[in-house]
Amino acid sequence: MKVIGVIGGGQLARMMIGPAVELGVELRVLAESSESSARDRTTAVGDFRDLETVMTFARDVDVITFDHEHVPTDIIVALETAGVAVRPGSAALAFAQDKIAMRQRLAELGHPLPVWSVAHTAAEVSSFLESNRGRVIAKVPRGGYDGKGVAVVTDPSQIDEWLARGPVLLEEMVEFTRELAQLVARRPAGETVTWPVVETTQANGVCAEVILPAPASDDRIIESAANLGRQIAQDLDVIGVLAVELFETTDGRVLVNELAMRPHNSGHVTIEGSVTSQFEQHLRAVSDMPLGSTASQHPWAVMVNVFGGMDLERYGRISGSSDVKLHNYGKEPRAGRKVGHVTATGTDMADAASRARAVAEIFHADI
Amino acid sequence: MKVIGVIGGGQLARMMIGPAVELGVELRVLAESSESSARDRTTAVGDFRDLETVMTFARDVDVITFDHEHVPTDIIVALETAGVAVRPGSAALAFAQDKIAMRQRLAELGHPLPVWSVAHTAAEVSSFLESNRGRVIAKVPRGGYDGKGVAVVTDPSQIDEWLARGPVLLEEMVEFTRELAQLVARRPAGETVTWPVVETTQANGVCAEVILPAPASDDRIIESAANLGRQIAQDLDVIGVLAVELFETTDGRVLVNELAMRPHNSGHVTIEGSVTSQFEQHLRAVSDMPLGSTASQHPWAVMVNVFGGMDLERYGRISGSSDVKLHNYGKEPRAGRKVGHVTATGTDMADAASRARAVAEIFHADI
Repeated sequence: MKVIGVIGGGQLARMMIGPAVELGVELRVLAESSESSARDRTTAVGDFRDLETVMTFARDVDVITFDHEHVPTDIIVALETAGVAVRPGSAALAFAQDKIAMRQRLAELGHPLPVWSVAHTAAEVSSFLESNRGRVIAKVPRGGYDGKGVAVVTDPSQIDEWLARGPVLLEEMVEFTRELAQLVARRPAGETVTWPVVETTQANGVCAEVILPAPASDDRIIESAANLGRQIAQDLDVIGVLAVELFETTDGRVLVNELAMRPHNSGHVTIEGSVTSQFEQHLRAVSDMPLGSTASQHPWAVMVNVFGGMDLERYGRISGSSDVKLHNYGKEPRAGRKVGHVTATGTDMADAASRARAVAEIFHADI
Repeated sequence: MKVIGVIGGGQLARMMIGPAVELGVELRVLAESSESSARDRTTAVGDFRDLETVMTFARDVDVITFDHEHVPTDIIVALETAGVAVRPGSAALAFAQDKIAMRQRLAELGHPLPVWSVAHTAAEVSSFLESNRGRVIAKVPRGGYDGKGVAVVTDPSQIDEWLARGPVLLEEMVEFTRELAQLVARRPAGETVTWPVVETTQANGVCAEVILPAPASDDRIIESAANLGRQIAQDLDVIGVLAVELFETTDGRVLVNELAMRPHNSGHVTIEGSVTSQFEQHLRAVSDMPLGSTASQHPWAVMVNVFGGMDLERYGRISGSSDVKLHNYGKEPRAGRKVGHVTATGTDMADAASRARAVAEIFHADI
């Protein structure tokens, strides 16, 4: 039996548990705490920044993969040097871990990007602000997630602290009509599949809702998103699931926003929406099994994140939500914390969205 | 968080793992061995016939339920006496554990049954043979499963050994056109739901294929199976999933064959086929959560059991099966052993069946 080692014990590792059981692969998790979301399969607790901890964990697995992109590059390289199969590998991960490296590489490859620049000084920020209507996005290259490490900037002084620590990525404020995400999966041998592009809605910089497929999309957008995702997966030699966050612009273009080389919030909707979920597919891809079908199972699937708490007692007092699927991350309640998601499917998008939101609301009300 | 304790570590407990993770209930398994199918959630290893073992396991859970019906009645009663929530309870389980008690009770309740009798002596067997065309089914009342403890009898001497151990259930050879199964789920408060009746095909006394919904069924059959299932669940006060195995007779009646008060092989098809699988529903029911929708997600879903071995390496060498879902029980290969199942869904029954069979064949060829 294949043994897959996941570094990181968050909800992404947690949602691999069910698919791993059904496929018959063994999942082991190196988590930061014995109380992490993926505690049911946590076989090691320790710091993923500690070489010894990670090497020990890797010793008894067939392949290493990830719940997040925060494992230091030197540790990933050390694993590879020691002969461990790491999927995705360090060369690919570099572009998910460092937003500046990602922009540079995608620009070299000719992929469509927002206008961007790297600032080392306040003067460089001022200059970029001047040529971009005085209002731009600044991102720390490493370690940000869910809106952290990202700011809207109108004056260089706003990012003094970031600049003091190193270069900052600057991007134009893209005039987008909406945000999309293209999910892709790729095997070591090269087999690459794409799901239909989804529409994502953010609230406070965090993914709030996802619709599969992205509504009102013409074939050109669907096809160009799929081709872009496929091409990036191949260009960067990504193994496993790749999520390409996209802007659809007011002038009808699709631009790359962010990359994630692991299952991603925009892909949770594939659990019910698709023949093969992103979690099963990630396990198939990193263990070099044939990839599953990415066909949709329903005309529409709508996912709504749950923040704060996910109290089953409260759920138990409500009726009429029997066709909305729960995904509980097993986290302690805390205001604003992403603690789960719910998904509804159906033939009517608005109806599915309203059913999913109604169940999410049961929980939202809790904190 | 609810803690659900399952006695028995087979594939039924295993297939509860994924749904438990997503619902956010904690699953604990008392297994016969640390290498059982449900080893990922095995928190205790021991003999389910040992009172002390079972009582210790039950101490830290909110509710006890079952992977099989072999736990002795006196142990279940002892749990209940000690205040443990046992679902289904001992009174209901008595009718799943003892085929004679089941026949007696269902007869009292007026449910449609094959002609049956209880034999204590060879003379009684002879007499039943005479009035039933010289060929009948004999069943040991307790402990049989998957064709074990069941025999076709034409002469009393064939079951001398069984008679020496106690009474034997005798049943007519029902002239059936096919076998059906009605899945039902029921909560403590009484809420009861039914899935559409399925058709099951046996090979050598073991379930081989299941089709959801049972093909070519007129509304009368569908409705009478659902009503029968619902009525039995209520009459016997079953909590959790109840599977009612049925014969559809040549003269258009539906007769009760067997009962199982737990997820059942005939219900595996609900994992892909239904909005709520029998495994998720069982967890919802025994933890007294609102029951999920039993609506079908596809016009057809076909499940095919895999016997012998389920070698993923072999699977990896085949292509074109990307839309057939694997369910691997994590068992060591052995000729004839039920080691997994596969399911295909679609708009064309014959096509789904042929796709599922093709993948099952990949594995069957292995032993």
